[in-house]
Amino acid sequence: MTAIAVADVKKDESEKKSPALGGAGLRGQSAGVTALCTVGKSGTGLTYRGYDITDLANYAEFEEVAYLLLKGKLPNKQELQNYKQALVEFRGLPEALRLVLETIPADAHPMDVMRTGCSMLGNLEQELDFSQQDEKTDQLLAMLPAIICYWYRYSHDGVRIDTANSREDSIGGYFLEMLTDKSPSALHKQVMHCSLVLYAEHEFNASTFTARVCASTLSDLHSCITAAIGSLRGPLHGGANEAAMAMIEQWQTPDEAEAGIMEMLANKDKIMGFGHAIYRESDPRNALIKAWSEKLSADVGDTHLYAVSERVEQVMKREKGLFCNADFFHASAYHFMGIPTKLFTPIFVMSRVTGWAAHVFEQRDNNRIIRPSADYEGPEHQDWLPIEERR
Amino acid sequence: MTAIAVADVKKDESEKKSPALGGAGLRGQSAGVTALCTVGKSGTGLTYRGYDITDLANYAEFEEVAYLLLKGKLPNKQELQNYKQALVEFRGLPEALRLVLETIPADAHPMDVMRTGCSMLGNLEQELDFSQQDEKTDQLLAMLPAIICYWYRYSHDGVRIDTANSREDSIGGYFLEMLTDKSPSALHKQVMHCSLVLYAEHEFNASTFTARVCASTLSDLHSCITAAIGSLRGPLHGGANEAAMAMIEQWQTPDEAEAGIMEMLANKDKIMGFGHAIYRESDPRNALIKAWSEKLSADVGDTHLYAVSERVEQVMKREKGLFCNADFFHASAYHFMGIPTKLFTPIFVMSRVTGWAAHVFEQRDNNRIIRPSADYEGPEHQDWLPIEERR
Repeated sequence: MTAIAVADVKKDESEKKSPALGGAGLRGQSAGVTALCTVGKSGTGLTYRGYDITDLANYAEFEEVAYLLLKGKLPNKQELQNYKQALVEFRGLPEALRLVLETIPADAHPMDVMRTGCSMLGNLEQELDFSQQDEKTDQLLAMLPAIICYWYRYSHDGVRIDTANSREDSIGGYFLEMLTDKSPSALHKQVMHCSLVLYAEHEFNASTFTARVCASTLSDLHSCITAAIGSLRGPLHGGANEAAMAMIEQWQTPDEAEAGIMEMLANKDKIMGFGHAIYRESDPRNALIKAWSEKLSADVGDTHLYAVSERVEQVMKREKGLFCNADFFHASAYHFMGIPTKLFTPIFVMSRVTGWAAHVFEQRDNNRIIRPSADYEGPEHQDWLPIEERR
Repeated sequence: MTAIAVADVKKDESEKKSPALGGAGLRGQSAGVTALCTVGKSGTGLTYRGYDITDLANYAEFEEVAYLLLKGKLPNKQELQNYKQALVEFRGLPEALRLVLETIPADAHPMDVMRTGCSMLGNLEQELDFSQQDEKTDQLLAMLPAIICYWYRYSHDGVRIDTANSREDSIGGYFLEMLTDKSPSALHKQVMHCSLVLYAEHEFNASTFTARVCASTLSDLHSCITAAIGSLRGPLHGGANEAAMAMIEQWQTPDEAEAGIMEMLANKDKIMGFGHAIYRESDPRNALIKAWSEKLSADVGDTHLYAVSERVEQVMKREKGLFCNADFFHASAYHFMGIPTKLFTPIFVMSRVTGWAAHVFEQRDNNRIIRPSADYEGPEHQDWLPIEERR
């Protein structure tokens, strides 16, 4: 992936070649209607169905937010309890899916595992009719953590975990338990709630838009989510927290980090975890996850990683006027909880599947197939030439 | 799928609820630049890189067209021979992929099989760097027919076919041989060339646009193609030839067909295989596949299916002014060659993978992440309410 990431940054700069290109990347163009989310609206940095992200991240469990996005309102106590119970009951993976996960090698890209696990599930639990969309979504939400942990533990530790057998009633706690075989601390469970809430939804980002384009052909839920996972895999979309981790773990002190960042800036290297396509002043998710990263740093007895991260934040602000986005302090936070870096983006999937599915439902409710046009810049007319006469 | 198809038609009509919606389906809006294809441009119904579809369908092998789309020019004799040989050598499926296909049940949706096979291949033959894109595309082009035939023959006939062992040097001939275990006739191979040429490319249709959105995050090739397969699966996109087949095979005579169509029109039922989002007068692909359907009808001693199809065409023209699109006579043509109806859309994949990949290459060459905006129509601001206080 590193090779692609480096090549990509160069490729992405090529957009500067045709700055006058109308509609490049559809930036600023409306591609539909949503009631799910506002991003960067003045006065409210990020809202899900009108609720401020800060309230949701501070007070809600992830399952409450999943319910809000998928069912349209915050659940009451009984509804939340029923919902969490329903999710718990979906955690057992079908045998055929386990067999498929066992055939995927340890050096596979974890996002390819998520994509394949989701697609395979579509063969076994096909959405036959849109009336099944709620149930199939709940099943995916419950199974995606099981899918990645089953593959990871089998391919890396040689262990076949029993994904149906858990003491944890939350998705975040369950993921940590499946991954480590230990009951996670209350602190870790709280951080996972916050993290999953922050990543759950973000309007028409590229992966969500992929899901909506797919949904607009009236395809099934598994196709839409599989497609979205494929888009999130791209280094310009998901994966920024992994790249941030790879960067900050090189440095042992804040001064070393400052020198490193200054050198990267001089070399015009891309520094991941900063700035945003939509937000201009700050990313409202940063302060929320940063506070947890600081607590985790103290909890784990970290001597330098949090301090390194803070220094990087200061230097980027000072030198480039750039702010941390949601991804930057996620890197250290996940690391402090013992999560392997390669599983950072799959956690994003475990959360964003709620937003993706909610957008699929919206698209289905008022659908027109998404079929834009293109500007043609190819040869006008070419005469057919028999193969014998071609050079 | 039928259940979804019926529900979908109704859902799609819901678009009429908000006719003033700006940007619905991005219709007529440019989402980028292409040199691959023009659709419905005056004077030229459909061109691939400037070549008229009629020339390509009449004179070219599918592999020549694949080469044209993927490498930018028509191959000379030596280049075509080398290309076909390279494709032949990619036909053996990795053992892990065969194991996965064997776990997929016979009642799975064949497009779910294609999607999962493509995704699984991405775990085993990961595109590590964009410099591998040509090779990975050729491999997919060679393996997709092997994937669907291996699954179909194993799940339906209990046979493990050897996909690397074939007498056929063309993709269409190879598909028919793997499916039937017999060497296809020269006529059948010609029809497959024509059919695969006709389906290879069609500008920014929904599945191709899905591939480009995914590519715009700089994700890998397998993610882009997997996503596109998921979109093509939708009944508003691929699958029209399957629906047309299900319709025409009900009728034993042209008069019966006419009565049936008149009844369907009276009921306002959706009739698949007619009209087009872009073409206004006719679909240039129809005459080409229709001629082959007529030849196959004579070849197979068909007593009514071709005549039924022609009558349906006449009635639809007379009653609604609608023309056949590429899909309608594909139904009878495929049927005359003994291809099971459920494999019609997977053939579309075997062909369109060339256009999808060529668009992925274009997107990568001049990329900007595709991230449109949305019109927000949700609640303005909602105050947080502790769970105990919710109803």
